[in-house]
Amino acid sequence: MVSRVEHRVNFYDTDAMRVVHHANYIRWFEIGRVEFLRLCGITLDDLMEDGYLFPITDVSAKFVNPGRFDDVLIIETTPAALTKAKMAFDYRILRAADETVLVTGHSQNVFTSQETGHITRLPEKYYEKLKRGLED
Amino acid sequence: MVSRVEHRVNFYDTDAMRVVHHANYIRWFEIGRVEFLRLCGITLDDLMEDGYLFPITDVSAKFVNPGRFDDVLIIETTPAALTKAKMAFDYRILRAADETVLVTGHSQNVFTSQETGHITRLPEKYYEKLKRGLED
Amino acid sequence: MVSRVEHRVNFYDTDAMRVVHHANYIRWFEIGRVEFLRLCGITLDDLMEDGYLFPITDVSAKFVNPGRFDDVLIIETTPAALTKAKMAFDYRILRAADETVLVTGHSQNVFTSQETGHITRLPEKYYEKLKRGLED
Amino acid sequence: MVSRVEHRVNFYDTDAMRVVHHANYIRWFEIGRVEFLRLCGITLDDLMEDGYLFPITDVSAKFVNPGRFDDVLIIETTPAALTKAKMAFDYRILRAADETVLVTGHSQNVFTSQETGHITRLPEKYYEKLKRGLED
Repeated sequence: MVSRVEHRVNFYDTDAMRVVHHANYIRWFEIGRVEFLRLCGITLDDLMEDGYLFPITDVSAKFVNPGRFDDVLIIETTPAALTKAKMAFDYRILRAADETVLVTGHSQNVFTSQETGHITRLPEKYYEKLKRGLED
Repeated sequence: MVSRVEHRVNFYDTDAMRVVHHANYIRWFEIGRVEFLRLCGITLDDLMEDGYLFPITDVSAKFVNPGRFDDVLIIETTPAALTKAKMAFDYRILRAADETVLVTGHSQNVFTSQETGHITRLPEKYYEKLKRGLED
Repeated sequence: MVSRVEHRVNFYDTDAMRVVHHANYIRWFEIGRVEFLRLCGITLDDLMEDGYLFPITDVSAKFVNPGRFDDVLIIETTPAALTKAKMAFDYRILRAADETVLVTGHSQNVFTSQETGHITRLPEKYYEKLKRGLED
Repeated sequence: MVSRVEHRVNFYDTDAMRVVHHANYIRWFEIGRVEFLRLCGITLDDLMEDGYLFPITDVSAKFVNPGRFDDVLIIETTPAALTKAKMAFDYRILRAADETVLVTGHSQNVFTSQETGHITRLPEKYYEKLKRGLED
């Protein structure tokens, strides 16, 4: 399963080079992850209420073409790997008007216990949902 | 007592008008408040560990002159009012190089209980420190 | 005419009080202004290509109720005043689920010449569109 | 030459996990780059006035330990590679109190012409300064 969610570039997302500031794409990968989880039937809030956090351990991005103010972007998120302890995603951010790729990226997130702060194994009920999302 | 703390404008603080995006000054007022509390001997962390939050209820700002990338700014914070339930501050953000005023502003913050979410009265130990800060 | 545009609260919009950081609402007022201009048939890009900027001179906000991660918000923008040199707006940010008001606000923006940096008078073609937006 | 610059974590840099939101570190790598250039005698403003931009093409980061509100961080930037068309940097972000590594990272930036938007070769006057910075 691949999630696709739209985001319009705000004026405050630009910088003095008159393009989107690159760090915003790293934020927008998060919009993509959250949307992917939502499609799997999971919200970060549910996870947190059950005592789990989903911190990121690694991220990388290639900035291929600049985004500009008012562009409508598509944030495309594809699951890349899943275990009970971690999950990886690939991202593409496209300009909706012509499907030009602006940014590609990858992240790895782990499941941790809010209480201990350590990596933990996700319970079956969440794992099954993510597994279906990965396989669909 | 007036607190003064420096902040250098980052590239990511600018927007496509090639000046500081105005919402950043609202963030920087917070740097000023935190610094003022620190001068009074109080950290937000201490407050939070004791079960208090210090949310903002009102803010206003006048944008007088634009800040630019790499400008060193001075965030000047003056206490304007204090009760056990709330505190107000006045701000001036100046360009350090020539003390030009870029922004003026005002905020009101209240003391709330983390547990109930409601406004609460600050215990004496914090109130006394803030009162000294206001009177000095 | 009143513009209404939706914005979903991102995880990166929250702070350690587990609510939306207040400075984000000031950014979101901008989303509201841009949307209002769009409904009037004007984009900031058009204005900038014609040599005009639309900087903010004053903003104020009252934070009434906290927004939380994943809330869908409605940014409601109402024109409050218009001359050829400036325009003012009122804002309300509501939680879409129950139309609870989270934040109210007001801003004043001026039309300036990119070349001189000074306040200028907006040409008729833009002014007429905004006037219709104000009166509708 | 290695540049080291301090940054104190602001409340607005945190998220609802009560730690620094990860995308901020990508912003802070930029503070490191700007500081490194400054030590070499180059400001982004000079580059831009001469018609050059310095956009980022690749970034990666590993998030090793969480940063928290009010932590003083050290952003350490080491040049990793330099040609007339591009420059790469390695980063470490440390907690100043105990020199714990919070984040490591890498970026590649290219020199482009503002006019054409294409990659260009940096003139000797800038290249020499960066080369000295790399070799020192």
